[in-house]
Amino acid sequence: MIIILAPSATDSDIDELVNNLKERGYGVHLSKGVEKTIVGVIGAHDDQKPVLAEQLSSLAYVERVVPILKPYKVVSREFKPEKTIVRVGGVDIGGQKVIVMAGPCSVENEQMTLEVAAAVKAAGASILRGGAFKPSTSPYSFQGLGEEGLKILATAREATGMPIITEVMDTRDVELVARYADILQIGTRNMTNFSLLREVGAVKKPVMLKRGMSSTIEEWLQAAEYIANRGNYDIILCERGIRTFETYTRNTFDVSSIPAVLELSHLPIVADPSHGTGLYKLVPPVARAAVAAGADGIMVEVHPHPEKALKDGAQSLTPQNFSLLMKDLAAVARAVGRYV
Amino acid sequence: MIIILAPSATDSDIDELVNNLKERGYGVHLSKGVEKTIVGVIGAHDDQKPVLAEQLSSLAYVERVVPILKPYKVVSREFKPEKTIVRVGGVDIGGQKVIVMAGPCSVENEQMTLEVAAAVKAAGASILRGGAFKPSTSPYSFQGLGEEGLKILATAREATGMPIITEVMDTRDVELVARYADILQIGTRNMTNFSLLREVGAVKKPVMLKRGMSSTIEEWLQAAEYIANRGNYDIILCERGIRTFETYTRNTFDVSSIPAVLELSHLPIVADPSHGTGLYKLVPPVARAAVAAGADGIMVEVHPHPEKALKDGAQSLTPQNFSLLMKDLAAVARAVGRYV
Amino acid sequence: MIIILAPSATDSDIDELVNNLKERGYGVHLSKGVEKTIVGVIGAHDDQKPVLAEQLSSLAYVERVVPILKPYKVVSREFKPEKTIVRVGGVDIGGQKVIVMAGPCSVENEQMTLEVAAAVKAAGASILRGGAFKPSTSPYSFQGLGEEGLKILATAREATGMPIITEVMDTRDVELVARYADILQIGTRNMTNFSLLREVGAVKKPVMLKRGMSSTIEEWLQAAEYIANRGNYDIILCERGIRTFETYTRNTFDVSSIPAVLELSHLPIVADPSHGTGLYKLVPPVARAAVAAGADGIMVEVHPHPEKALKDGAQSLTPQNFSLLMKDLAAVARAVGRYV
Amino acid sequence: MIIILAPSATDSDIDELVNNLKERGYGVHLSKGVEKTIVGVIGAHDDQKPVLAEQLSSLAYVERVVPILKPYKVVSREFKPEKTIVRVGGVDIGGQKVIVMAGPCSVENEQMTLEVAAAVKAAGASILRGGAFKPSTSPYSFQGLGEEGLKILATAREATGMPIITEVMDTRDVELVARYADILQIGTRNMTNFSLLREVGAVKKPVMLKRGMSSTIEEWLQAAEYIANRGNYDIILCERGIRTFETYTRNTFDVSSIPAVLELSHLPIVADPSHGTGLYKLVPPVARAAVAAGADGIMVEVHPHPEKALKDGAQSLTPQNFSLLMKDLAAVARAVGRYV
Repeated sequence: MIIILAPSATDSDIDELVNNLKERGYGVHLSKGVEKTIVGVIGAHDDQKPVLAEQLSSLAYVERVVPILKPYKVVSREFKPEKTIVRVGGVDIGGQKVIVMAGPCSVENEQMTLEVAAAVKAAGASILRGGAFKPSTSPYSFQGLGEEGLKILATAREATGMPIITEVMDTRDVELVARYADILQIGTRNMTNFSLLREVGAVKKPVMLKRGMSSTIEEWLQAAEYIANRGNYDIILCERGIRTFETYTRNTFDVSSIPAVLELSHLPIVADPSHGTGLYKLVPPVARAAVAAGADGIMVEVHPHPEKALKDGAQSLTPQNFSLLMKDLAAVARAVGRYV
Repeated sequence: MIIILAPSATDSDIDELVNNLKERGYGVHLSKGVEKTIVGVIGAHDDQKPVLAEQLSSLAYVERVVPILKPYKVVSREFKPEKTIVRVGGVDIGGQKVIVMAGPCSVENEQMTLEVAAAVKAAGASILRGGAFKPSTSPYSFQGLGEEGLKILATAREATGMPIITEVMDTRDVELVARYADILQIGTRNMTNFSLLREVGAVKKPVMLKRGMSSTIEEWLQAAEYIANRGNYDIILCERGIRTFETYTRNTFDVSSIPAVLELSHLPIVADPSHGTGLYKLVPPVARAAVAAGADGIMVEVHPHPEKALKDGAQSLTPQNFSLLMKDLAAVARAVGRYV
Repeated sequence: MIIILAPSATDSDIDELVNNLKERGYGVHLSKGVEKTIVGVIGAHDDQKPVLAEQLSSLAYVERVVPILKPYKVVSREFKPEKTIVRVGGVDIGGQKVIVMAGPCSVENEQMTLEVAAAVKAAGASILRGGAFKPSTSPYSFQGLGEEGLKILATAREATGMPIITEVMDTRDVELVARYADILQIGTRNMTNFSLLREVGAVKKPVMLKRGMSSTIEEWLQAAEYIANRGNYDIILCERGIRTFETYTRNTFDVSSIPAVLELSHLPIVADPSHGTGLYKLVPPVARAAVAAGADGIMVEVHPHPEKALKDGAQSLTPQNFSLLMKDLAAVARAVGRYV
Repeated sequence: MIIILAPSATDSDIDELVNNLKERGYGVHLSKGVEKTIVGVIGAHDDQKPVLAEQLSSLAYVERVVPILKPYKVVSREFKPEKTIVRVGGVDIGGQKVIVMAGPCSVENEQMTLEVAAAVKAAGASILRGGAFKPSTSPYSFQGLGEEGLKILATAREATGMPIITEVMDTRDVELVARYADILQIGTRNMTNFSLLREVGAVKKPVMLKRGMSSTIEEWLQAAEYIANRGNYDIILCERGIRTFETYTRNTFDVSSIPAVLELSHLPIVADPSHGTGLYKLVPPVARAAVAAGADGIMVEVHPHPEKALKDGAQSLTPQNFSLLMKDLAAVARAVGRYV
């Protein structure tokens, strides 16, 4: 940690600061320049750093505190240089194969779910997605079927052999969802629900952590650190678009976060172009872009009749369009030395 | 709801759409212009609208769906024209008096809490704030004292007579926090934790709902609607800054949201310049601005020794600075026909 | 244009509005619903619409004005369904071939420029880029060689046969830059410099219009309309990243704008991953993503010694890395049915 | 400047870096920590720093470069601790009096302009604003009367005695506009039009520099430095809202930028709540907030018939509402120890 002092800092301010830091057991490195005095702080522990930075910033003679180390550790590439592969039900996420997760936004009923599951499997999907608990901006919107939806997903897993991924939104439901699902999904609206992160960190099931729509890459990796910190290292990250001033798309899909995450972290990363764009016509080109940028997987919403979908119809592909997309993705994956 | 058709829409597309809507029981109003055909949909219920808009957007011959009605109801001014006053422990929030909530970011120990409580009360604060459960971006940061912190707050209430406000982060803690607190706070990171919103909606205690750092005013009011929808109408809104590209301040305090909310909703609104700016030097001018813009209250972090605070030291005022701020706020409140 | 009236609108308000509109010669379509009254305005000309919308919004009984038509015309797909191909010096931009524009950020001297030009040509680039007039955030930074730089670019064109693209920043320099350059570039900082847009609209040279870093897609197309409106239809759009809260990358490259623009407009679109990310390590994956998403070209900064570059060293590729990138792009282009 | 090395940096990398820096004449300060090696660079001149930072960032063994000094100088408080007062036609901007600039968005004709000028003067305005050259997002919108508009403004100055402020958009018009206007305005869309900044820096008339809608405070001050760098120190800054995801308001008025600028710079700062909000109902509360936060002035759009305004009707006040606002501002100014 480096402390840049204000021009108004006096010698006695500097003495006070240095003594204060030494008393707390830190090493101190003082550098008086012509225009600025800089103090290096050595030896702060992980759990002291954010607090220390805040405390020092409150001093009138401190201009700015610059952290040197990254605020996450276990999920960083420096901690573990080799890529993590998350294994679930015979599927490897993070390896050479680009994994496709597909299915309806919401589980609406058994028949539709089985129909979509069979269709996406036939087209080459590896994992079935579907929401039983749905986060809706409006209290008047469909909120999901709950446990009934989980049971339908389990039936679809038996019918197709595909592992299932579904969202959990409440700490009280973690145990229930973990009983049915193969991968627990943390949605964008709960990326900073730290109680929920801790709870899924204590479960023995892989977790897919979507990026918060207003989260920096650094904060996203800190959220992953919450999960890892409780002992669950089977974490998959998912870029799903961030909130910007652009209104044509529902979110702005941050394609550069894919190579950035792959450099900063050893965790696999999946892309969700359905929520990333909100427009079904943009899903195929953005899915291709994500694979070209190095994504380990793609998550896509598929619905047999988007115009009758109970949720997110505007961004759902028909099974026919999904099938075409799979062919496109196979070609792009080959171009970057992978396969679908 | 108005549907703007794509230029490519054929007559048979239009017939299909109109028949589809009529079959579902909606009134339909067709207007063929020279350049665009527009379809008005009449009679959709609150719980059908978001779904219907999504479904229609998935049709290739639909260019855009424009909602006409606001997506919230109970919290709107149209629903209840007169301002809501939330009464708690003898304090009226939303009336002529501008209410000041002050206290430490985190409850660190009993002595400090009692010291700050006495100081802010002496300076004119009406409500004591303090965190027992703390949302921290890093898993390695201080997470709060939990129930121990709630007990200390209760002791401070007894000592000073001030009602207390504190954050709840987990659905499982709502009952516990409600037992101690006078006002339950939903933090910015949980504004879209819909399970938590529903849970505090079922409690008989006022709730202060902070704006999500990436939430529009409309989404914020929809989150309030979640709480009201469960029967709890004692809701206070709190502007605390939104996330933008500006990095000098921690967040960008959206002062215009104050008059906007007062026009759109009957709920009282409080401003938090501490989190809104993240810099203690900016807290007084932004607090004055909020009162000048019509805020019903101000929430400020006060710490006897910010340089030793376990959280958010950089944005905390000393009791001395808080006392000066109270004098400033009194003058500004008078200028806009109110008092502190 | 559709006017949604406030709940407070009285019958006499409505009469006043309708008469006012009819007097101005517009057709009026009134629809009184249970909850809202809506007025459709028919027949407003392109040059009246923005003004009319502003005027109506100022009426106390108007809640909102919703435009129906897009605010640009000549550059829209509806106006010209077939894709535009911009031809320059034997190179077609917008056809099957993905065009690569490469070169140094700034023209620093003749030797370096010729060296880079030869290297990028050998690796497969079609157009040489290089800045003679440089927009710098700081007045103390390198501002470019001016006409001297233009001459060096012309020499490089002669040496390699590649057409050259360079930025123009001042209305007074348009004639000068057009004398040397094959394509005039409007940078992100000048996308809303409307005087400059008009000036390059009157020139007989293709123009590449970079997206403003805070411009929506709609505003970007309106800026293109400024150029087209003066008679210059040879316009190439260039996505170069937008400003968001993310600080890891210099900008957030909006990959979904590529398919969006291709749907909304007939103009070709090029991607600039160098400015889009600001980090040379992220340039190759984002360039691949752009081609996979349908970009008609890629613009990349190449410098023989980025650590000695007078500008934007952090985002420049070495000729070696550029050569590797060209191989990657060839593979991805093939995967989407194109070639490099 | 501080260089944080990547964990992969070898001893020979470090030697290379240190030698490279020493050869260029910089002082070097090396600090090898347990986890990170840090290199301090001493003695870089203002014009070398941005380039040097870019160059170093391109080295594979450099993780990050942290600048220590601010990238602006002449406009900073450190350079000139006492507040600048800009004097124009007997009006002091930056002193105890809060200056109000008012008038129509566009100069439409002489009669309307004289009418508004007389009305705003009677209500207490000090400076007349009005656009002769108008930046419009659409090429089909009103673009202003040009020199004819400047003449009308000059007539209004004679009639009322108020100095006039008007926008200049083109380097070729600077001399013309400076002949008529008392203050030259640089609009938000031209804050990064560096040619224009340099041009107004060479003129002997005060300049009001609006914040770019996507500019950080730091970039805004760098733009001011461009003007000062050419010898014109009579600069007034103007906060007018930044672009965010919020769509209810046209921009998000960043009230905290006012105290921030007053701390970082000696230049006076004015607030424009008309463009900051885009909604006439929000102009009075946001204007009050700006004065409470310390603004040296307010710029407001006033039109006798907003519903007939040729530009920005939605955000214009009637003369009656402006008169009420002046009373409000007088009360708030008094509350913060100033007057209107």
